[in-house]
Parts: sequence; structure tokens; C-alpha cells
Amino acid sequence: MMHITRRESFNAAHRLYRPEWDDEKNMEVFGKCSNPNWHGHNYELFVTVKGEVDPGTGFVLNLKKLSQIIKSRVIEKIDHKNMNLEVEFMTGRLASTENLAIGIWEQLRQPLEELGASLHCVKVVETENNFVEYYGS
Amino acid sequence: MMHITRRESFNAAHRLYRPEWDDEKNMEVFGKCSNPNWHGHNYELFVTVKGEVDPGTGFVLNLKKLSQIIKSRVIEKIDHKNMNLEVEFMTGRLASTENLAIGIWEQLRQPLEELGASLHCVKVVETENNFVEYYGS
Amino acid sequence: MMHITRRESFNAAHRLYRPEWDDEKNMEVFGKCSNPNWHGHNYELFVTVKGEVDPGTGFVLNLKKLSQIIKSRVIEKIDHKNMNLEVEFMTGRLASTENLAIGIWEQLRQPLEELGASLHCVKVVETENNFVEYYGS
Amino acid sequence: MMHITRRESFNAAHRLYRPEWDDEKNMEVFGKCSNPNWHGHNYELFVTVKGEVDPGTGFVLNLKKLSQIIKSRVIEKIDHKNMNLEVEFMTGRLASTENLAIGIWEQLRQPLEELGASLHCVKVVETENNFVEYYGS
Amino acid sequence: MMHITRRESFNAAHRLYRPEWDDEKNMEVFGKCSNPNWHGHNYELFVTVKGEVDPGTGFVLNLKKLSQIIKSRVIEKIDHKNMNLEVEFMTGRLASTENLAIGIWEQLRQPLEELGASLHCVKVVETENNFVEYYGS
Amino acid sequence: MMHITRRESFNAAHRLYRPEWDDEKNMEVFGKCSNPNWHGHNYELFVTVKGEVDPGTGFVLNLKKLSQIIKSRVIEKIDHKNMNLEVEFMTGRLASTENLAIGIWEQLRQPLEELGASLHCVKVVETENNFVEYYGS
Repeated sequence: MMHITRRESFNAAHRLYRPEWDDEKNMEVFGKCSNPNWHGHNYELFVTVKGEVDPGTGFVLNLKKLSQIIKSRVIEKIDHKNMNLEVEFMTGRLASTENLAIGIWEQLRQPLEELGASLHCVKVVETENNFVEYYGS
Repeated sequence: MMHITRRESFNAAHRLYRPEWDDEKNMEVFGKCSNPNWHGHNYELFVTVKGEVDPGTGFVLNLKKLSQIIKSRVIEKIDHKNMNLEVEFMTGRLASTENLAIGIWEQLRQPLEELGASLHCVKVVETENNFVEYYGS
Repeated sequence: MMHITRRESFNAAHRLYRPEWDDEKNMEVFGKCSNPNWHGHNYELFVTVKGEVDPGTGFVLNLKKLSQIIKSRVIEKIDHKNMNLEVEFMTGRLASTENLAIGIWEQLRQPLEELGASLHCVKVVETENNFVEYYGS
Repeated sequence: MMHITRRESFNAAHRLYRPEWDDEKNMEVFGKCSNPNWHGHNYELFVTVKGEVDPGTGFVLNLKKLSQIIKSRVIEKIDHKNMNLEVEFMTGRLASTENLAIGIWEQLRQPLEELGASLHCVKVVETENNFVEYYGS
Repeated sequence: MMHITRRESFNAAHRLYRPEWDDEKNMEVFGKCSNPNWHGHNYELFVTVKGEVDPGTGFVLNLKKLSQIIKSRVIEKIDHKNMNLEVEFMTGRLASTENLAIGIWEQLRQPLEELGASLHCVKVVETENNFVEYYGS
Repeated sequence: MMHITRRESFNAAHRLYRPEWDDEKNMEVFGKCSNPNWHGHNYELFVTVKGEVDPGTGFVLNLKKLSQIIKSRVIEKIDHKNMNLEVEFMTGRLASTENLAIGIWEQLRQPLEELGASLHCVKVVETENNFVEYYGS
């Protein structure tokens, strides 16, 4: 089994909080990540696709196509944006790294399937010390 | 001549814009960095001090002290904050990486001098592709 | 399935040798890693936990809690220490990276379980060229 | 289950193209990677072996032996070489990263098995944005 | 004094040799870097510009403009190319990293000057173990 | 002016303390770095040489020669060693990173001069957060 991975990156602002909680409760659960004036990160995104190698091209999937799909479906929608206010695929979700990985998975799974490619993992690196990996539900 | 460098890091939101310009002009000059809803970065900060090696300790400056000064004078004031709205040493300044380096230099120069240490360079890494280095005016 | 990973780091001295072997035999098997006067490394530790995302917080597990457990159960016991002489969870074990990963796993599995979290992988990076990953027995 | 990984690196030239296609068709499929005058990369190779920990040594496999096998079976044959013209284990294969991982797997599987070690994964990093992982057929 | 740096990257094939020397002499001086069938690298390029901060923008130089100049004057001419055969600014030069840095400097100095910016340093990283920095003659 | 840099690495144990101070005083000044049972690091060493480019080779200095000198004069003497007990060029010196850089400078300056090369900087990286640069006295 062959896995291929493409890295892309984006910068975004976000805030962790629940609107039904007051500031004190939000601070207790989310700490400084609940700052009402936002903070942000350089996110690294690793998208892994698995499949057989096409004998005609030597590729599982053309990385240029993979990069284009990630850019049009994810990066253009989130780069230099506010994740809580402006990113349609995060609407109604707490802006945690876990939910971000789920949102990105949902953006990518079907367009990749239409190319005959199977999405294996979405990895989102928030800082050099923290990352999540989502393998689908 | 010996130079010692300490790395610290912080996350912050910011926006590049001039209030006296309209959105169109801001977008022309600053591009997507002028997004009114903010975006953010993981900043890496490298602070370099120069001096003679103290024969009693083998140190130019105790790195624990250097780290404490950087934390109390810079990191605690900017980490998980909005650089335009909440960071006192950026008040009245465009929130560019260049101005951020100048602001950090001004926070550190005197407390280091009081320890007998000479600030040599403040390097601020905004993304893996962009960084600035400030050596004082 | 969601995996979240926290990176921590520590510095330690160690030596690979078997007390019942003479120096020649230890040198033959372990090479310069059996130097009787010790050597050391900057270790990077990646702890991966798997689980469902809590809809109330957007988290699998609060990373602050994960970090606290790793610090109290592992880092405080091994950082700036001699792995062969001073680290209780390595007692009676050859100080290889493999055994270090097993020792760290044993330190973390139960405290994480008590939080409802399932330890998935302990990765220990000894140098940029060598690392091990332990998934439990 | 314990996994150990050794990183090695090499530099090589290559070109993606099918000789039965004309330049236009090759350019359409492979883009600038089909440049007839070659281009090249710094490749990073991560070889992962899995197994039980030997209680006598604390090792799954002596990393010095693993490194020697990778060097004699892979690095010496491909480093500073032209992958299309000079690397015997790539003969008859399109010089994609996927096929490179398969070729390296075939070079390593049996010599490792003779040492009682089980090859788990060959990861080839072509650029900081692209890598493949092969787990065997 | 403020220095700003932009990183770009490219992949290229090259070969170190002097046509007036025979293969034996070339091998003696340049080692495996003189392989007649080429080899290649992922090069990282760091371009540093120095100047005063413009109070109107907070910039020494707009990084988008700097990136565009590097791309049009350097990257498009060398990326996925053979440095010895296809790169006009390397014609008549031994394809060493030192000469590459000089060639890139000559491509960038004047267009930057026309923008009122002063080129300070061209750094070319050939591998993680080797790099050169050129400050002009 | 051209600068070329070679990176090498080594692992070593060390301890910061003054024998004429008691444990309490050593702990006060050096903290956990004074642990009597040693700790250790993966050190990265960057050696920078400056000079003119030789038109015959395109090199300031052949990097293979530079690497050989660093290995024979520094790495073989300190790798997998105890810096306080076993490294001749650290005898009589507090084992700080600053003094290590001075010791390495003294090992390299003359052999490089004999090759017509001028040592410019010795950079020693102790951890990802701490490094020193020495430019000679």
C-alpha cells in the first residue's frame, strides 16, 4: 500500500469559546486561547492519500492535482482569515484543531474520491508542540 | 567576541492597515494581511546578546535570566494577544514584523543593560519564508 | 478516529552496557554508546492519545492536562538527569531508546486512562537520525 | 509493538517521462519534472523496522547494522547518481517518488529478514512539501 | 538598521568539473560531485535586504515585491533546470554553490536598487550540512 | 566576501559546576545543569570560513577538507564523550557552551590557516532554544 502526502500551510486567527458560557467559564476551560480579541497561528496541513501506483505515470495521484484541490477547497477559504467568523466549513463548530481537521476532511474527501483517490489522513499542526491526525469517522 | 542567543515563541493575531486609508487602498498595499477580521501567526523570537565570557561562570549572561527578561518584558504582553488592540508596546505602530522587532528591542535593551549585557540583535520569524533582524538604530 | 500529539523535550546522560560483560564485549555490542564516562542527548518525546472529540470542548483531551501529566510523570523525573543512575522508571533496564519508550509508556498509560484518554503511541527521538515508536505490548 | 526508524539521505538527478510519449505529452502529464536536461533533489529516507525488544541488548535491531544495510544496499547505489541512467534497482521504472520507495523496499526487505528484522515502512521525502510512505504490497 | 529576509526554494541538477581536465583529475578534485550523469539538490535561497523602515507602510520593502523579483530573476530561470546547461546566469562558471550565490547576487542587486532597496546577503543552502553566504564584492 | 559553513554534530555529557563551590552554591548559579551525575546534549556545530572564491575550483575551501579537519580536530575528541573528564581541549575550563565554542575555535584556527582559510565563526547549538556564536578574541 502506498501513501502520498502533500504539505500546504495557512495563517489564521481563531478563538476557543462557547457563547453560552461567560468569560470566566471560558477562561477556566480554554485558558488564554479564549482571548476575546483573537490570536492566531501558522498552521501546517499534511494531506495523505492512499492507493495503488498507476503504472502509466508512476503516481498514486498527480501531486499537482492534489495541491490544487487542497488550495481551492481549503487554503483559499481559510488563509489569512478568521476561523470563527469567515470560514464557512467551520460554521457552528468550536474552532479547535480537532474540529479543524474534521472540517478539512469533509472538504477534501469527495473531490478526491471523484479522482479515484482515497483520503487517508488529515494532519493539522498548530504549533511545533501540538498536532492532530484525523483518519475519518 | 561572544554572542549568545535565546529563542522564545508566541502566537498572536494582527492586521496590517492604515486607518486613514479606505479598504481598497489598504488591500492594494497590504493584500490579504489587511483582512479586517484579523489573522495570526506563530512567531519565533531570537534575542542575541554580546559580551565577554565571565571567567567565574563561563557565561556571557545566565540564559535563565535572559529567558526571564524576555518572558516578562515581551512574551507575557503579546502571547495569545491581538497585536493591534492589546499590546502596549505596539500602540501607535503599524503591526508589521519590522515594527514588532523595533518594539521588542525597546522592551529589552534597558533591562539587559542593567545586567551589564549588550543587546545585539532581535530576530522575528513570522513564517518559515519571512523574517527580520533588527540591530538597533 | 482522532489522534492528538503533544511534544515535550528533555536532556539526559546515559550509557549502554551490561554489567556482567567486560568493557571489550560492551564495546563490541554497543560501540561508543558504552563509554563508561557517559554521553547524552536532547531527547524529543511525542505522546499520542486517541479518542472521540468531546462536543462540549472540541477536544479529545485538553492539551494543557496532557502536558501536565507528561511533565509530572516523565520530564521532571528525567530532565537533566543520568538515565542509568537517577531515573526510577529505568531501574533494571538497559538504557536504550526502546526501553526508554517502554518506561515512558508505563508512566503515562494509567494516568491518561483515569482521564478517559487512551494512550496510542510514545515516540522518542534520540537524534535527528534515530527514533523509536512504541504502541504498547 | 516497537518500531525503530533510521534516517539516511542522498542527492540524485532524475526526470519523469515516458519514452513512447513525445515532449508535449510528457510536459502535459509531468510538467517541469520532465525537463530533458534533468533536475534533482536532496532525498531523505526513513526506514522503519518493527519487532520485539531483545532483552540482552535493549534493541529491536542494532541501528549500526541497519544503517550499514541501508548504505550498502541503497545509498551507495543512488547517492550523487542519475536515477534514470545509473541506478540498477530503478531500471525499467518511471523515476517517481512512489517507484523509488518500491525499489528501496525491494533492496532492503530480504537483507533485513536475514537479520530477523521485519521491514515496516519506507518513507521517501522528495521536498519539504512532498513525501510517500510504502508499507509493502 | 533593519534586515529583512525572504526564503525561496528550487530544485536543480548540476555537476562540478572542468572541461580541460580529464575524468580522473575531476574526480580527484570534485569527488562524486563530478559524476558525468549529473546529480541534484533542493536548494534553499535566503535573500536579505537592508534599509530603513518606511513609516507609511512599516516595511523596509514589500515582501510580495521582493518575492516577485526573486521569482522572475532567479527561480523561473533555474527551478527544475540543469545549472550547467540551461541557466544563462551560470554560463561560463563552475557550478559550485559559491558561484551560484554570486550569480544570484548579480541577478538581484540592480532590480532591488531600482526599488530603493539595498541587497545585503544571498545565502544558498545546498544540503542541511552545507551553505554559503555572499555579501557582495 | 564569501562565507561557507559546514555543519557537524556530536553528543556529549557535561556538568556545570565550580569545584571550589559547595553543591548549594553550584545549584544556585547553574541550576539543574550542575547535577553531579551529569546530563547531556546533541550538539550541532556550524563552522564558518571566509575567503575569496578560487577561480580554478569555484570553492573558497573544499568542504570535504573542512569536514575532515572538523572531524579529526573536534568531533573524534568529543563525540560520545564526557566533556568535563575526557576532552583535552576543555581541560581547566567550565563546560559552558561559550567555553566549548572557544575551545573548538582554538582547535580549528591554525589548521585552517595552514590551508589558506580564515576561520570566521564557530556556532554551537546546545538546544533548539540556546546557541552561541564566537568570532575570535
